[in-house]
Amino acid sequence: MTTDNTGERDLGYARVDLERKTRCGRSEVIFGRGKTPEEVAGIASALREAGQPVLATRVTPAHFAAVKAQLPDAKFFDRARCLTVGANPPDASNRRVGILCAGTSDLPVAEEALVTMEFFGRQAVLISDIGVAGLHRLLSRVDEIRTFSLVIVVAGMEGALPSVVAGLISNPVIAVPTSVGYGAGFGGIAAVLGMLTSCGSGVTVVNIDNGFGAAYAADRILSASL
Amino acid sequence: MTTDNTGERDLGYARVDLERKTRCGRSEVIFGRGKTPEEVAGIASALREAGQPVLATRVTPAHFAAVKAQLPDAKFFDRARCLTVGANPPDASNRRVGILCAGTSDLPVAEEALVTMEFFGRQAVLISDIGVAGLHRLLSRVDEIRTFSLVIVVAGMEGALPSVVAGLISNPVIAVPTSVGYGAGFGGIAAVLGMLTSCGSGVTVVNIDNGFGAAYAADRILSASL
Amino acid sequence: MTTDNTGERDLGYARVDLERKTRCGRSEVIFGRGKTPEEVAGIASALREAGQPVLATRVTPAHFAAVKAQLPDAKFFDRARCLTVGANPPDASNRRVGILCAGTSDLPVAEEALVTMEFFGRQAVLISDIGVAGLHRLLSRVDEIRTFSLVIVVAGMEGALPSVVAGLISNPVIAVPTSVGYGAGFGGIAAVLGMLTSCGSGVTVVNIDNGFGAAYAADRILSASL
Amino acid sequence: MTTDNTGERDLGYARVDLERKTRCGRSEVIFGRGKTPEEVAGIASALREAGQPVLATRVTPAHFAAVKAQLPDAKFFDRARCLTVGANPPDASNRRVGILCAGTSDLPVAEEALVTMEFFGRQAVLISDIGVAGLHRLLSRVDEIRTFSLVIVVAGMEGALPSVVAGLISNPVIAVPTSVGYGAGFGGIAAVLGMLTSCGSGVTVVNIDNGFGAAYAADRILSASL
Amino acid sequence: MTTDNTGERDLGYARVDLERKTRCGRSEVIFGRGKTPEEVAGIASALREAGQPVLATRVTPAHFAAVKAQLPDAKFFDRARCLTVGANPPDASNRRVGILCAGTSDLPVAEEALVTMEFFGRQAVLISDIGVAGLHRLLSRVDEIRTFSLVIVVAGMEGALPSVVAGLISNPVIAVPTSVGYGAGFGGIAAVLGMLTSCGSGVTVVNIDNGFGAAYAADRILSASL
Amino acid sequence: MTTDNTGERDLGYARVDLERKTRCGRSEVIFGRGKTPEEVAGIASALREAGQPVLATRVTPAHFAAVKAQLPDAKFFDRARCLTVGANPPDASNRRVGILCAGTSDLPVAEEALVTMEFFGRQAVLISDIGVAGLHRLLSRVDEIRTFSLVIVVAGMEGALPSVVAGLISNPVIAVPTSVGYGAGFGGIAAVLGMLTSCGSGVTVVNIDNGFGAAYAADRILSASL
Amino acid sequence: MTTDNTGERDLGYARVDLERKTRCGRSEVIFGRGKTPEEVAGIASALREAGQPVLATRVTPAHFAAVKAQLPDAKFFDRARCLTVGANPPDASNRRVGILCAGTSDLPVAEEALVTMEFFGRQAVLISDIGVAGLHRLLSRVDEIRTFSLVIVVAGMEGALPSVVAGLISNPVIAVPTSVGYGAGFGGIAAVLGMLTSCGSGVTVVNIDNGFGAAYAADRILSASL
Amino acid sequence: MTTDNTGERDLGYARVDLERKTRCGRSEVIFGRGKTPEEVAGIASALREAGQPVLATRVTPAHFAAVKAQLPDAKFFDRARCLTVGANPPDASNRRVGILCAGTSDLPVAEEALVTMEFFGRQAVLISDIGVAGLHRLLSRVDEIRTFSLVIVVAGMEGALPSVVAGLISNPVIAVPTSVGYGAGFGGIAAVLGMLTSCGSGVTVVNIDNGFGAAYAADRILSASL
Repeated sequence: MTTDNTGERDLGYARVDLERKTRCGRSEVIFGRGKTPEEVAGIASALREAGQPVLATRVTPAHFAAVKAQLPDAKFFDRARCLTVGANPPDASNRRVGILCAGTSDLPVAEEALVTMEFFGRQAVLISDIGVAGLHRLLSRVDEIRTFSLVIVVAGMEGALPSVVAGLISNPVIAVPTSVGYGAGFGGIAAVLGMLTSCGSGVTVVNIDNGFGAAYAADRILSASL
Repeated sequence: MTTDNTGERDLGYARVDLERKTRCGRSEVIFGRGKTPEEVAGIASALREAGQPVLATRVTPAHFAAVKAQLPDAKFFDRARCLTVGANPPDASNRRVGILCAGTSDLPVAEEALVTMEFFGRQAVLISDIGVAGLHRLLSRVDEIRTFSLVIVVAGMEGALPSVVAGLISNPVIAVPTSVGYGAGFGGIAAVLGMLTSCGSGVTVVNIDNGFGAAYAADRILSASL
Repeated sequence: MTTDNTGERDLGYARVDLERKTRCGRSEVIFGRGKTPEEVAGIASALREAGQPVLATRVTPAHFAAVKAQLPDAKFFDRARCLTVGANPPDASNRRVGILCAGTSDLPVAEEALVTMEFFGRQAVLISDIGVAGLHRLLSRVDEIRTFSLVIVVAGMEGALPSVVAGLISNPVIAVPTSVGYGAGFGGIAAVLGMLTSCGSGVTVVNIDNGFGAAYAADRILSASL
Repeated sequence: MTTDNTGERDLGYARVDLERKTRCGRSEVIFGRGKTPEEVAGIASALREAGQPVLATRVTPAHFAAVKAQLPDAKFFDRARCLTVGANPPDASNRRVGILCAGTSDLPVAEEALVTMEFFGRQAVLISDIGVAGLHRLLSRVDEIRTFSLVIVVAGMEGALPSVVAGLISNPVIAVPTSVGYGAGFGGIAAVLGMLTSCGSGVTVVNIDNGFGAAYAADRILSASL
Repeated sequence: MTTDNTGERDLGYARVDLERKTRCGRSEVIFGRGKTPEEVAGIASALREAGQPVLATRVTPAHFAAVKAQLPDAKFFDRARCLTVGANPPDASNRRVGILCAGTSDLPVAEEALVTMEFFGRQAVLISDIGVAGLHRLLSRVDEIRTFSLVIVVAGMEGALPSVVAGLISNPVIAVPTSVGYGAGFGGIAAVLGMLTSCGSGVTVVNIDNGFGAAYAADRILSASL
Repeated sequence: MTTDNTGERDLGYARVDLERKTRCGRSEVIFGRGKTPEEVAGIASALREAGQPVLATRVTPAHFAAVKAQLPDAKFFDRARCLTVGANPPDASNRRVGILCAGTSDLPVAEEALVTMEFFGRQAVLISDIGVAGLHRLLSRVDEIRTFSLVIVVAGMEGALPSVVAGLISNPVIAVPTSVGYGAGFGGIAAVLGMLTSCGSGVTVVNIDNGFGAAYAADRILSASL
Repeated sequence: MTTDNTGERDLGYARVDLERKTRCGRSEVIFGRGKTPEEVAGIASALREAGQPVLATRVTPAHFAAVKAQLPDAKFFDRARCLTVGANPPDASNRRVGILCAGTSDLPVAEEALVTMEFFGRQAVLISDIGVAGLHRLLSRVDEIRTFSLVIVVAGMEGALPSVVAGLISNPVIAVPTSVGYGAGFGGIAAVLGMLTSCGSGVTVVNIDNGFGAAYAADRILSASL
Repeated sequence: MTTDNTGERDLGYARVDLERKTRCGRSEVIFGRGKTPEEVAGIASALREAGQPVLATRVTPAHFAAVKAQLPDAKFFDRARCLTVGANPPDASNRRVGILCAGTSDLPVAEEALVTMEFFGRQAVLISDIGVAGLHRLLSRVDEIRTFSLVIVVAGMEGALPSVVAGLISNPVIAVPTSVGYGAGFGGIAAVLGMLTSCGSGVTVVNIDNGFGAAYAADRILSASL
C-alpha cells in the first residue's frame, strides 16, 4: 500500500486519488456498486487517513458494517443508500437548495441528492409528493420554492415536474429523471427524454436515478465564484 | 365501376365502403397521404353519390383542387391539411369538446382534430398556446375547461400538458402527442412515452400527430348511449 | 400526523390527498409497488378515517395482511393484485362496460380493470380468450359486445384485438397493451406500437399493463355529463 | 468483359452470376436501388445473352428506359417499381398464390410480390383493401382464400392482418410488413414486431416492404419437391 | 365445465378450442408459460377427452408432473421445454425436415422445433453446431441438407447461418433467431434484424426463440396441397 | 390584436407573453422553426412595442428579412441561425462564460449559445476545435478555462469532451450534445447518452443541438442570488 | 492567418494541426461534410504549405473544384467521395491489404477504404461482390485472401461476411458495416449489431459506412513495430 | 464419442473442432455460459487428449471444479471468470500489449482480456483506473503506453477513454465497451455507440464486455506476418 508522487494511494484493488480536492475542489467520492464491503472500507480508511471526509453512494448495509468497523463515526442513510464519515465544512451563507420530489417512489433518489448536498456542507430542503397530477400541492409552495438558490427536481414516469417548475422560477433547475414507473416508462427513458425536451427553458438534466450527480452539479454552482 | 352486394364500390384503385355508416355508425374517411388527387376525388365523388358527407385528412392543395373540380362545395382547411364536402348533422345538445394545444407548432394537429369534430357535427373550442412552461395561461382557463364534456390535449416535446390537465378536471382526457420538437424528442417518441406514463390517472393516448384519431375517439364517446 | 389546510394528511412517508374527490371527482388510489405493507396500511387507514373508499393496486398478500389487520373488511383480488376497502356507490343506470381479453395470460391486467370498474361502482363484464387468431370466438359475441357502453380491450403479443373490435362497434374502445409475449414483443412494445397505429379509427391507448388506467379512463367517460 | 470459369461475367461494375439457376434453382435478380440505369441495363443484357429471363426490382422509369433501349421486349410495372424481360416458364399446375393486401397504400409492395410471382411462372391473385378494421371484407372472401396454395399477406400500420388470416386457413402464410403509416409506426417497426409476435401460429415474416422476398419464399415452397 | 355450441370447452381458467383441427387443420397447442401446472393439466385432459393429441410448449418439470398424474402416457422433453401426450399420425411420405442449429446454446430452441415437427407426425433431422464461423462443418453437409424438403435454421448472435444456407439450397428456409449471445446481441435483436435483412433471397423469419412457430410454419407447408 | 389582462397579446397566430420577464426574470424568446417570417416579425414587433429585447432562434434569412423590414435595427447571426433586436443590459461584473466546442461542425450550436449569452448581457468566450482526440489543444488552454465562471461544452460524435473538462475544473459544466456525426451517432444519441453517463461528476446536459437551452441555463446560474 | 506555438495554424474557420504527424504518426485528414468548398480548399492549402499530403473524405465535386483551383495536382475519387493531393511515401514491403466488399452497393465505402490505404502508401486489393449468399464466390478466393496481411470486410444488410471470413483466415479482420439495405436494416443497425456479435472470434468493428476509419486502423497495424 | 474425418470429435452435446488450430491458427476456445460443468469438462478433456491447450471463458467455480477433477493442472481466474489448462507457447519477442482499464468496475472484462492474451503466449500489462475524468492519471503514463505494440482500452459509462488514447499514440487501439454504469448507459449501449463514433481515428471496437474478443483480435495482429 503506497502513495505515489501523483498523490494517489494504490490499494491494489483501487487507486485512491488523495489530491482531487486540491485539483478539482472536491475530494473523491466512492461509488459503492460493484465494490466489496472490504474494498469500500479500505478506500474510506485511506481517505480518512489523508484527512478527507468520506461519501459512498449506492452502498448496502453490509458495506456500512465494514466501514463502521474501521471508522466508528460512519453514518448510514438507508433510503438514500449512502454512507458518510465526516463532512465538508458547512456553507456559512444562508443559501438553501430545494429538492423537489414528484412522488414517494422517487424518494431514494431525492434523498441521495439530499445526503450529498449536506455532505458538501450545503443546506438543503426536501419537498416530496408534489407531482404535477395534483398541481395545487406545487402551487401552494411556489413562494417557498422561489427562495431557494437553485432547485433539484426529481421525477419518474413522464418526468413533467421540471418543465412546470422552470416556468415558475428564475433560478437554476437541475432535473433528475428516475426509473420509477413501468411499461412505456422503460426504466427512466420516458422521463429522461421528457426532461431533455422540456418546454421550460434552461432545464439541465443528469442521468437516470443520479441524485448524487445533481447535487454535485449544484455544488459546482454554489462554489463557483459567481 | 360497380357496387357489389357487400355495399362496396370498387373503383379499381380503391374499394369504397358505402355501408360503413350503417355498420359502424360513421361513414368512411379518406386518408389522403399516398393517394393521387384523382384517387381522392374519385372516392369523394363515390361517397357523395351515395349521399354521404366527405372528410379527407392529410391532403394537399392539389388534392383539394381535384376534389373541388368535381364537387364544387368542397372546403379546404389549410393548416389542418383536411378537406370536407358536406358534414354530418349537428349535435342538437350544447355539449362542447375542448381542444387544448400546448404550442403554436402543434396547431396543425389540433386543427385536424377541430375539423374532424366539426365534420362529425360536434361543437369544439380550440385553446392554443397553453403549455405547462407558462402555467398561468392554463390556470386562468380552468373554469372554462371544466365546462367541456371532454378534452383533447395536443402537445409535443415532453408532452406534459395532459398530465396537468388530468389532475384538474374529472371529464375524459384524450392526449395527442405531436412530432414537434427536435433532438431527444425523436419525432414524437418523448411525447408519446410521456403521455402513456402520465402520472395523471385515466389519460388515454392516440398515435403521434393523430388529431383525427383523437376526434374520432371523442365522437365515439359523444355518440355512445351513456 | 397532521391534516393541513390544503386537505392533505401528512403521514411522514406520504402526503394523503383527502380532498381529491372534491377536486377531481375521485378519491386517491394507492399504487402499492414500492411501498411497504405498513405504508399502504397507513394510507388506507387515513382514507377510511376520512370516510373514503380504498383501492390499492399492484399489492402483494403481505400488503393485504397489513391492511386487513387494521381494516377487517378489506378484500383481496389475487390475480388482479388489488385490494379494496369499501367502494364507491353503485351506478344506478344499467350501463355496462365490456372488458375483452385476448388470452389467458392477459387476465391479471384485465382483472385489474375489472376490480377498478367495480370499485368505481360500475357494472363490468369480462370476456376472456377471444384473441384474433380464433376469430369465431370474437364474432360469436359481437351482439353482446355492442350492448356495452364502452369496451376495454386487453391484449399482448401483437395487440391486434382492438383494431378488429373498433371496426365492429361504434362505442368507445380503450386499448390496454400487455407485456405478455416474448422475443420481439419486447415486454409490450410490439403491442403498444400496434395499438397506437391501429387501423381501426378512434382507438385510444393506455400504458402497458395498465388495467387500472383504462378503467379510470372509462370512469371519466361514464361520469361525464354527456 | 469476360466470363470466368466460375460462371460469372465480370462487367467491371458488377459480377453477373450466370450459373445461379443451375446452382440454386433461380437465376439472379437485379436489385435496382443504388445502381445506375446503365449498370442495370448492362446486367440485364448479360443475363439475356446467357439466355436467362430478367427481373429487376426497385427500378425507376430511367432504369426502364435504359433497359428498353437495349432489350426492346422489356416491360415496366410502375406501381411495383419492377421491370422484366422474358419470364420463367409457367407453372403447369393450377396452383394459385393469394396476395392479400390490407390497404391501398400497401399496393406497391403487394404488386412487387405479384410481379415476382408471375416472373417465376406462378399464378397469383391480388386481393386488396381487406384490412382488419373492416372485417366483413375479409370474411366474405375466406372461401376463396382457402383455395390458394399459400398466401402472402401485406400490411402496414399495426400489421394485424396475418394474425387473423392465419387463424382462418391451414396453408402457409407469409407476412410482409410495410412502412405504411406514421408516428408510432416508425417506418414499419410496429408492423414487423406485430407480425413476428403474431398470435396466429406458424406465420413467417420477411423484411419491411420486401414483396420480392415474400414471393421468392413462396416460390421456394412451390418448387420444393413436397 | 361445459362445451358450448361453438366447440369450446370452458374450464373457467381457459376456453379450450376443440374444433380447431376441423377449422384450421391442427388441434390447439398449449403455451405453458404463465399457466399453473393444474391449468396445463386441465387443458391437456380436456383435449385428450376430445380425442386430440396434446403438445404443450414452454413447460417446466412441475407442469409435466401435473399432466402425468392425469395422463400417464405423457412424455417430457427437457431441453426443449415441451411435453406431449399422443401425437398426430405420421406422415406417410419420406419427406424430411432439416433443423440446422448454429451452436450448442441454440439447442433448446432447435429441439422445440424438433419436438413440434415430430408431434405433427413429420420426420425431422437435427444437425447442430454448424455455425458460419467454421464453414467446413456446414459445407461438408450440403449434400445432405439439399435432400430435406425444407430447412429450419436456428441461430443466435449475428444470425448469419440462414443467409449462407439460403444461397446453397433451393428449398424453403425458415429462420429462427435466438436470444443466445450478450452485449450488442440485445436478447436476439441482432439476430432477428440480421435474418430479416438477409442477403439470401426468400428467407422467412419467426419470432426470437420461437422454435415451435417455425415448425408450425413448416407443417403448414408440408400439409398444403401443393 | 389585443392585450388581455394576463399580460398576453393575442396575435391570432400567437399569444405573446409580455409579462414573462416580470414573472420569470427573462422575456419571451421566439423559436423560429415552424413559424412563417410574418409570424416571427409580428411577435418581434409586439415584444418591441412592449419595450422588450428580441431573440429568435432557429431562423432563416427569410425570417430575418421580414423582421428587419419592421425593425431596422435587427441583427442576423448566420451560422447561429439567430436574430436579435436590442439586448438585455450588460452584466456589470467581469464574469465570463466559456463555450468550448469540440469540432468545427459543432459551431452552429456553439454560436447559438454565444448569441444567447450575449443577448442576456453576459460576456462569453468561444473556444473551438478542442476535441479530445487532440488533447494538447485542450490542455494548453486549461488555465484560461479555469477563469470562466462556468463552461458550456459543445460536442457531437461520442461527446467525450465534457467528461474530460469536468475532471479539470471545479466550476459548473453544462454539456450540449450535437447531432454531428453519422452512422452509430444516430443524430446525437451517442453524444447525449455519453454525456448523461459521463464519468466526470456533476455534468448536466441539455437537449441535442440545444445551444440556446445551455445558455439559458447558464443565465439562470449567473442571475441567481448565489 | 497565424501558426501558433502549438503547431496549429488558425484559419478562423478551422485550426489546422500541422504537427499531428510528429505527434501521432499521421498528418491531419479533412472530414469534408459540413465544410464549404472554400474551407476545405483553405485547409488543404495550409497542409500543403507545411509540406504535408492531403486527404479529404466525404467531399463533393464542388469541394474538389475549389481545391483543384488552388492545388492543381489534386485528384478526385468519385465513388469514394474523396480527394487527395500528394500522398504518403509508399510502403517498401510487399505487404498487401485485402478489402472485401459484399455487394455492389457497398462499393463507395469500400473505395473510401481503398483510397485511404493508398494515401497512406499501402498496397490494397479490392475484391467486390463476394457476399455470403453466393458462397462459391468467396470460397474460390480464399487462397488469395489468406495472402493479405489483414483484411477489411465491408458489408451492409445483415453484415454476415466478416463472420465467415474470420473463420477462414488467421490474420486481422476489420469489419465495416454499411447503411446499405432497407427496412429492418435501419440504416446500418442490423449490420453493426451483427458484426459486433459475430460468431467469428476476434473481429473488430468501426462505425457504419466508415471506410476511412477501417483503413486508418489498418494503417495503425501496418505501421506498428510488431 | 467419435472423431470424424473432418477433425471433429462428437461428444453428443458438442462437436469439438480439433483441427481449428491447423485451419485458423488458434485452437477452439470454450464459451462456458449456457454449458453445464460436465459439458465444459468434457470438451476440455477432448481438447487436452488432442494435445491442445484449453481456455474457457464465462465460467463459474462449478465449471472449474468439474474441469479440475479431470484435469488437475487447470487454473481458475476468479475476476476474469476464465479457466485455462496449459497455454500456447510464449511469444519469443519482447512485444507487449497494454490493457488500459477506465475504472475498477471494468476489471472483470479487462482481466478476461489479460488471461486470454497470456493464454495465447503474449506479454500483457494491465493498467487500471485511468479513466478520463482524472486525466493526470492517464497523462502520467503516456510514455509507457507508447511502448506497447498495441493497446486494448476497456471502459464503461460513456466510453471516452479510447478516443483520448487514440489521439496520443500511433499504434493500434482496440476498444472494449463494458456494461458498467446505470440509467442512460443502457447496459453498454452508451459506451459502444461512443466508441464506434470516436473522434479518435482508427479505433476499432468489439462487443460489450467482450474482453476475450479484443484479445483474440490482438493476437490476430501479433501473429500476422506483418
